[in-house]
Order: sequence, then structure tokens, then C-alpha cells
Amino acid sequence: MEIKELIRAGHGEVKADLVIVNGQLINVASSEIYPAEVAIKNGYVVAIGDVDHCKGPETQFHDAGGRYLAPGMIDGHLHVECSKLSVSGFADLVVPYGTTSIVSGLDQILVVSGLEGVRHFLDEANAGPMTIHWGAPCKTPYTMPRSTVNHYFSPDDHRATHDWPECIGIWETVREFIQEEDDHVIEALEIARKNKLPVFGCSPMCKGSKLAGYASAGIRLDHESYEVTEALEKLRNGLFILIRESSISHFLEENIQLATKHAPEAAHRVSFCTDDVVATDVLKRGHLDNMVRMAIRAGVEPMEAIQMATINSAVACQIDHKVGLIAPGRQADIVLVDSPQSFNVQQVIAKGKFVAQDLKMLEPVARPERPEFLTETMKVAPVSPADLRVRTDEDAVKVLSMNMSTEVPFVRNRREAVLRASDGVVLPDTEQDVLYVSVVERYGKTTNKPVAFVSGFGLKYGAMATSTAPDDNNIVCIGTNPEDMAAAINWVIEKGGGQAFVKDGEVTVGLELPIGGIVSDIDPVEMAAKEEALDAAAREAGCRLEWPFMNMFVLSITAIPEFAITDLGAVDCVALKTFDPVLEPA
Amino acid sequence: MEIKELIRAGHGEVKADLVIVNGQLINVASSEIYPAEVAIKNGYVVAIGDVDHCKGPETQFHDAGGRYLAPGMIDGHLHVECSKLSVSGFADLVVPYGTTSIVSGLDQILVVSGLEGVRHFLDEANAGPMTIHWGAPCKTPYTMPRSTVNHYFSPDDHRATHDWPECIGIWETVREFIQEEDDHVIEALEIARKNKLPVFGCSPMCKGSKLAGYASAGIRLDHESYEVTEALEKLRNGLFILIRESSISHFLEENIQLATKHAPEAAHRVSFCTDDVVATDVLKRGHLDNMVRMAIRAGVEPMEAIQMATINSAVACQIDHKVGLIAPGRQADIVLVDSPQSFNVQQVIAKGKFVAQDLKMLEPVARPERPEFLTETMKVAPVSPADLRVRTDEDAVKVLSMNMSTEVPFVRNRREAVLRASDGVVLPDTEQDVLYVSVVERYGKTTNKPVAFVSGFGLKYGAMATSTAPDDNNIVCIGTNPEDMAAAINWVIEKGGGQAFVKDGEVTVGLELPIGGIVSDIDPVEMAAKEEALDAAAREAGCRLEWPFMNMFVLSITAIPEFAITDLGAVDCVALKTFDPVLEPA
Repeated sequence: MEIKELIRAGHGEVKADLVIVNGQLINVASSEIYPAEVAIKNGYVVAIGDVDHCKGPETQFHDAGGRYLAPGMIDGHLHVECSKLSVSGFADLVVPYGTTSIVSGLDQILVVSGLEGVRHFLDEANAGPMTIHWGAPCKTPYTMPRSTVNHYFSPDDHRATHDWPECIGIWETVREFIQEEDDHVIEALEIARKNKLPVFGCSPMCKGSKLAGYASAGIRLDHESYEVTEALEKLRNGLFILIRESSISHFLEENIQLATKHAPEAAHRVSFCTDDVVATDVLKRGHLDNMVRMAIRAGVEPMEAIQMATINSAVACQIDHKVGLIAPGRQADIVLVDSPQSFNVQQVIAKGKFVAQDLKMLEPVARPERPEFLTETMKVAPVSPADLRVRTDEDAVKVLSMNMSTEVPFVRNRREAVLRASDGVVLPDTEQDVLYVSVVERYGKTTNKPVAFVSGFGLKYGAMATSTAPDDNNIVCIGTNPEDMAAAINWVIEKGGGQAFVKDGEVTVGLELPIGGIVSDIDPVEMAAKEEALDAAAREAGCRLEWPFMNMFVLSITAIPEFAITDLGAVDCVALKTFDPVLEPA
Repeated sequence: MEIKELIRAGHGEVKADLVIVNGQLINVASSEIYPAEVAIKNGYVVAIGDVDHCKGPETQFHDAGGRYLAPGMIDGHLHVECSKLSVSGFADLVVPYGTTSIVSGLDQILVVSGLEGVRHFLDEANAGPMTIHWGAPCKTPYTMPRSTVNHYFSPDDHRATHDWPECIGIWETVREFIQEEDDHVIEALEIARKNKLPVFGCSPMCKGSKLAGYASAGIRLDHESYEVTEALEKLRNGLFILIRESSISHFLEENIQLATKHAPEAAHRVSFCTDDVVATDVLKRGHLDNMVRMAIRAGVEPMEAIQMATINSAVACQIDHKVGLIAPGRQADIVLVDSPQSFNVQQVIAKGKFVAQDLKMLEPVARPERPEFLTETMKVAPVSPADLRVRTDEDAVKVLSMNMSTEVPFVRNRREAVLRASDGVVLPDTEQDVLYVSVVERYGKTTNKPVAFVSGFGLKYGAMATSTAPDDNNIVCIGTNPEDMAAAINWVIEKGGGQAFVKDGEVTVGLELPIGGIVSDIDPVEMAAKEEALDAAAREAGCRLEWPFMNMFVLSITAIPEFAITDLGAVDCVALKTFDPVLEPA
């Protein structure tokens, strides 16, 4: 909206489109709650309090019925594609729960479809109710060593995108890049400094000298604390703290102690994010509204909890001139709740329009046409079972199997096992729970498809595969035998992307993800049903993990300790090198 | 400093230059006070807490002796030139009191010497202990209607300077420009939006629909509240609040009630500035340290008061990645105080170097060479008494005399008086305290030198003149007769700028201001002595104002109600038009 129009509307020379009356304003700037009206013009708040001067003959009125008006909530760090929903589908999922803004790098579509993929997703968001504040990823893929993708996001891309209106800074600056003084990441930071943009971090399990070096690089915030003492040390070192409560990594209860116990006077430097969420979870627990309620239950004052979901993230991410409070000049993103204490979302206004009621969208967000650069991204030929074998000249070998930690979500630790070989092939062993895991490079740039070993999934039969798999979104597959693995991978390839469970060579459950091979335009309820069916198939095959596909989905992330697998092979995430999973003859 | 060097220093791969030991860290980020060491490299903090990994054989140690380490303080809004001291002289004045950063538009040197003048001042600051965070003025001069200056700061200048490393946003966005939708100011705001820079405000006595319109324009902060209820309304409307305590406008006691009474939970959105200060005042009361002590006396918790002088202004001005807290990656600006409660500054470290002890600089800041564009700025011929007369054909006239308010500092209200004329000239009347006031355009662009009337100065004889006079820095002169006025003005012209008091045609006290005609390189103590001598001369002549020259100095500011005078003539500051001070025959 033009600045002059906003000024005129604020002055009342041009009258408001909509005035909300009879509401209690949760003013997160002044930390007060009081009766106030809100005047809205062209999607922006233009006056609060006494707004009589904004009312005209054409103005519409909405009676809030005494309910409380909170700002639309902001997810301070989110990989939207991890939901497997398109931007519009994700809006359908979270906007009814009051999330009207997300801070995201769109890093998954970026590695698949490059800048035009990101641009398409941003344009899609601009046309819908949910605002994406885009952080340019420090570089993608984040994998170390760098795995194969279609588009590598480089310093030149930073130069090309920092002046995009949606670009708010540098995103997901993985600590290891700083430690290793990665030339491209350092260059990106220099570009950001020149462009006066903030740099957002990613530094799990970081304290002491590591933290001093990391913070010295100018990192503004972090969302990755595993313990509250870690979060406290980051806070003391000047970082804003985003508490993460994802579908799998549940860290609110631990880290909210920052506000309730360790640094209660610094609550305004604490905010919320969910990082990775799936429809199944959001439809059960809610989204940021759930985090607000959890924080209140943990002993945080309702005002402070609401601030953590709104103005605090806005200030931390330097987007508080756009969103995060109900005040003139900001987007009219407003959530009507029953009370600050119980914080049940009842209605949602996004960009000045009523879009949701009683946790349902009034209408689904319109999906745009999807161009070929989004739908034709699977550039790999079908695989054969013979491609998916670990070979040896020995009769038996000792192998390193990456083993799912039972204590920390996603972490893979070291497990050694002895496997027998037959006809020159090391065989998976369901008795020992040592399965094959493979990554198939799918952009047609190599023929990489290494095979290694994984434990903790517990499948007794079959195979499971996914083409949505950060950080590079190659095809990850876990299986008890090469034949089922090939069937799962080939189904994913044939569909242009997806997830599948295979038993006896047949796909028993499949989810198509035709947009970039990573997301779908189906609605969230349908997505949740598919997620449950896929996970149920894996559990029925013996998997004991709560979220089987989500755990497979992150196996390529080398930033998660201690082992990973990319199209380059098995990776030691501490040494940041590939290694041969066959250790020695046994 | 290079980012890689900072990282290495933080990691301890390169050792610190200096480590401060045995101090109590006032951590304004976590709102805690605890024993901690601070490691410094090349002027930057690189580690806090346990910094053993940063200590090497060449590292120097400083024992804080158990004292408290506060961040260097930040003046959130300051016209440095109003002190009549050069940048280096001003640093000599305020750094010993713990002010290591100022946010300033350098708007006075800007209208005199253009961008090269600003560049010179910024380079001067970069070489010294005090950091200037430069806000590009929305446009200068701020006068409405626009008075004559050497350099008009236009939208093209915004385009040319926003990428200067020191530029942090748009400064002093005078509310009336927004109300009038001034094309150049709106264009500047659009440029700032594109460049993702914040916009700082200036909106005295602004509430209701005026405030809604102003805030809708995207203004981030304001420093101009005359009453705490006004400050509260601005806070509610999303603005950060800077409380001003200048040498003349004492608003801390009023506005600090925001934190003690009206919105105590929003104290982190409140910070301090001094706007205009003179050496006489700072040497008596201190600077921001005084504001901290005043706030504590008013009932603010010491931690909160210190935050208002440090991190709060840094966040409000979006410079918290550079200054405002003692944390890795920030400038090593550190103030050692006796205790948080009493807050007496004992030592100051700026950019990693000890620069002051016991409220004195260890060494004065080195003054740079001053180029001709700074020293040859007085392009006007001497005036004659005949130039300084209000003419009439009547024998007596009713005039409008701008009358100094006895209630609100600087405000000039309406006073009508009947003056006699002689030989076609309306005569000043010391009995009625209606004196002449003139502004002589001094850039050689016009021959403007209008004369009007002023009351409240109370001179019984003589004249006083100044060439430092925001917003345009033409020569302002008040006098009881044209002869003394001409003598005062001509002395100022001859010296290349200054302030003078004249009695019986002779300069009895003179202060030379050879840099831009507005500031001097003399030291603060000498400046204070000159200020006192000038004011004493005016008081001896009958002036009853506490600060006679300071009150004259601001007579050209049309943003101060209700009347002003510029080289265009007497100005009605509400109608924003010039007017004839001779109203009618009497």
C-alpha cells in the first residue's frame, strides 16, 4: 500500500474499510489489555483506540463480542516444505490456529527449482493469507561435504535476492560453516553486512568457545538449544532465543525455563518457532497457539506468552515494522481469542480479511497453476535391485550402522554390527535390526546411489522411500531387501516425487508429492491421513519409532549428529567426511 | 574488522589483545549481573564469561577491581553540533561520562557543507572513541516554508548515502511533513522502505488522529513527548519511546512515569536521548549517566535504567548488532561503574581502548585538519544598521511579537504590542520588552535579512548574535538597536562564524565557531566558560532567561510552536506561512 494512502487513512481523510468494535486489545507493545477499536484500510491497521475519525458511510463493522484481539502469530523459524504441503496448503493448515506469518528460507524448493521456485512460492504467499518473511539461506544445501542438488545457492544468489521485498536477512547459518570458515558463507555474511541485513543462526549444542566464535560472527538469533542452560548462555552472549517445539523435537518445556526461572526479566528476548511440523501434529495440538498455552501452563504470564508468539519474534527477526503487533502501519493480522489465559483461537483476520472461524478456513486458499520447473524435477532413471547392494570379498564384515538415538530426536549414534555376506554382497539383518539405507541422486547430475546401514527403524519386511528429504531432497530409502527398495524408489520416481511403503514388491501406501517432488496441493486433513497411513505401514512392519517417515526424512541432514547419508555416501557429521560403512573383515 | 578474524578470536585461535578480569558484568541482554571476564580483540568483544581460551602470551589484563561493567551508553537522538563543539570536542565532553555512541543526523553541518561535511564528521568520529550512528535526515532544512541554506538534502542524497556503512535509517521525520504529505519526505520514506532501513520520528504534542496518521507512515520511534500520557499513546501505537532530557527541555521526570507507573512491563521499549546539550550542563550534571541516576531516583530498577541507556536504544535504532551490550561481535565499549545503584562512571573503554578515568579523558581526541569547505562558509557581506529596520508610514503600529513561553521551553507564543515609529521606522521598545530579531542569510544565495519582533529576552541594551542556529544556520540576532545588531552580526561574519554579545557598538564577549560557522575545536571546559560568559553578558543586560543564547539559537526552528523567524521572514508555525509582524496602524 502506498505510504500516502496509509497516512490519509490514519488521519481519517480516507475512511476505513473495516472497524472492529467491542474487542479487548491485547497490546503487546505496551503490555496492556484494554477495550479498543481497530480501524483497517486495504489490509493494514491505520488506527487503534478511539477510531471514530476513520468511520465513514462505507465502513463495515465487526463486533468482536467482547473477545480479545491478539496480533497474528509469527513462526520465527520454519521449513514450510517439511510439512509436505504447498504454501497454500500450509496456510490452510496453520492460519486457522492464528499463525499469519512465518519466517522461512524455502530452502527445500530452492535446491530443487532454484530462485524461480522460491519466487513462485513467495508470489503464492503474497496472494494468500499467510505472509512469508523470507530469509536467504546462508547457502544450500547445508550438507557437509556438499551433496548434489539441482540448484546451489551461492553468494551471487545473495547479491541477486537481498533486495527482494520479502528478503529479511540471512537464514539458517549453520554453525559448522562458521567454524570451518566456509568461504561462501563468510561472503554471504559480508554481503548481508553491506546490505544491513541481520543474520539468523543454527547452532545446536553450542557453548563456550564455540559459541564465542559463532556469536562473534554477528549471529542475531538461534533456535537450536537442547538444554535451558545452553539457551541461557546464548542469551547472555547477545542472541535472541527462539524456542522450538516441532512435531518431533519437543523443547518448549525445557527452554521455557529461561522465562520462568533462569532469566525471567529477559522474556522479551525469547520467542517461538516450530521449525518442522506435520499436519497430523498440528491438527491434534494446534500450532503457535499451542505453544502459547504450553508456556502459560509452564508458568509464564499470558501477556508474556502471547508476546513470545508475536512481537518478540518480530523484533528478533526485525520485521516488527510489518507484523507482530496491532498498531498503525502494520498488516491487519488479528486473532480473536476467548481469553488471554485459555487462548483458544476463535476467528482469524489476515491482511484485513476474515479467513478462519472455529479452527477452520472459511474457504481453502486458491492454489496457483504449477509451472513445469516445479513439476518436472525427477531426472533420474529407474533403479534396479542390483544397484542397491553393499559388496565385499569377505564372508562376514564388521559394519558401522547409524543408530537412531532413543534419547534425542533424530540423532544417529554409532553402532557396530557383524553382518554375513553372500555372493559378494553384505546382507541386511532384520534380526539385528541392521537395515540398508540408500540415497539416490535424482537431479540427473551424477549416478550416485550409495548404500549404507541404519538401525533403530526395526522393519521386519519391506522398504520405505521419500523424495522430500532435506537438505538436498534426493531420494532416501530404507529397506530390508534391495528388491523392495527398488520398487519404492521407482514408484517415487514415476510419480514425480512422493513417499511410499512397499511390501513384497508392491506399494501398499503411497503419497504423491508432485511439486518439486517435495510438496503437494492436497488439503491438510488428507495429508494427515496419508502421513498416518504411511507411518502405520512402517509400524506394522515392525518400526518402533513414533514417526517413522519423519525420521527417515532427515537422514541426509549432516548438521544432525553423529552420522548421516547423502548421495556422496555415509557421512561422519563430526569429521564432516564420508566414510566406508564396512569397517573390517569379521 | 574482518568477519574471519572475529570468528578466530572468538574461538581463541587468535588470542585477545585485552582481557578484563575481576569485574561484575551488567548483562543487559539477560538482565543479570554476575562475575565474568571480557575478552577483546581489535576493538571488539569476542568472548564473555569464561574466556581462558582467549588468553595468550601477548594478552594484556586489566583488573576491574570488583567494579561493574556496563555497556557504553548510547544517546538515541542528538544534534551534536548544537553543543558548538566539533565531533572530537563533543567526544571529549561526553565519553568520560560513559557515552560512547550517539545517533545523530549531523543535520547542521549538512545544510552548511553538504555531504562532504557530513562525510568529514563521520570520518572524524571513526578515528576517535565516540561512534556516530548516522541517520539521514528526512530532508533538510526542516523549516516550513523552506528557508535558504547552502545544501538542501534531497531524495537524491538519500539514494547516495543509504549505503554508507554509518547510515542506519531516516532521521528526524518531522510530523508536519507527514501531515502535509511533503513529496520529498514521502519519497525518502519510500527509498528507506526499499533499502529496508527504519524511519525515526519527531512528533511533539501528537495524539489521536494525528498520531494514527503519523504512525501509519511507518515511523519507528519518537523522542518528543511533552506529557507521559502522550508518550503512553505513542507506545500503544507501536512506537519506541526515547525520553529526552536536554540541557533545556527537562522531560525525564515526566516521561519516566511510563516505566514507573503507566506501562511498567514495557520498559524495554523505553530509552534515553539528550537531543541538544551544552558543555556547561554536561560538566555539571553528566550526560546519559545522569539520566540513569535520575531514572533510578524516580523509582526505576537499576538494571532497567541501565538498559534504557544501552540495549534499549540499540534495539530501537536497530544498531544492537554493533553496540548496546557487552557481547561477542559488538564494539568493545565498556563503562566501569562503582555500582548499578549509584552508577558513578569511573573508567571508560571505547573501541577496546581505555580512554577516560574519573570523568576525564586520558588524552584529548586528536582534531583533524579542517578543509576549506568547512572553514569558508560565510558568504555574506557586512550589514549596515540601515539594513536592520522595520519600516512603516504610520506613527504607531500594532505588532505581533513572538514571546518566549514561561511554561514550555523554547515555545514562542503570540504577544501583541503597540510600538511608536520615528522617521518611518518602527522602534524596538525595551520598556515593553519588544526587541528586534533578525535573520541574515549567510550563504550568498539571497540578500534576505528580515526583521521582526521578539519578547521575553528582556535586554535593556546591546545585541546578541549567533551563526549556529538550526535548522538552517543563518545568522540570528536579537537587539535593542540596529547599530549594536549590525556590530554583532558583522563580528560573526568576520570570524567565519560564532556568537557575540555587543554593548555600545563593541563586542564584549565573542565565541568563534570557525568550522562551518557552527562548531569549534576548543575543549569543553573552555566552551563552557565561553557559554557562561555569553549568557552572563546577556543576563547583565537584563535577560531573565536561564539560557539566553540557547533560546535565541532555536528561534529559526519552525517545528517549535507557535512562531519562528527564518531568512524568509517571521513564520506562523501552525499555518506554516510567513507573515508581516506589523499588524495594523495603532
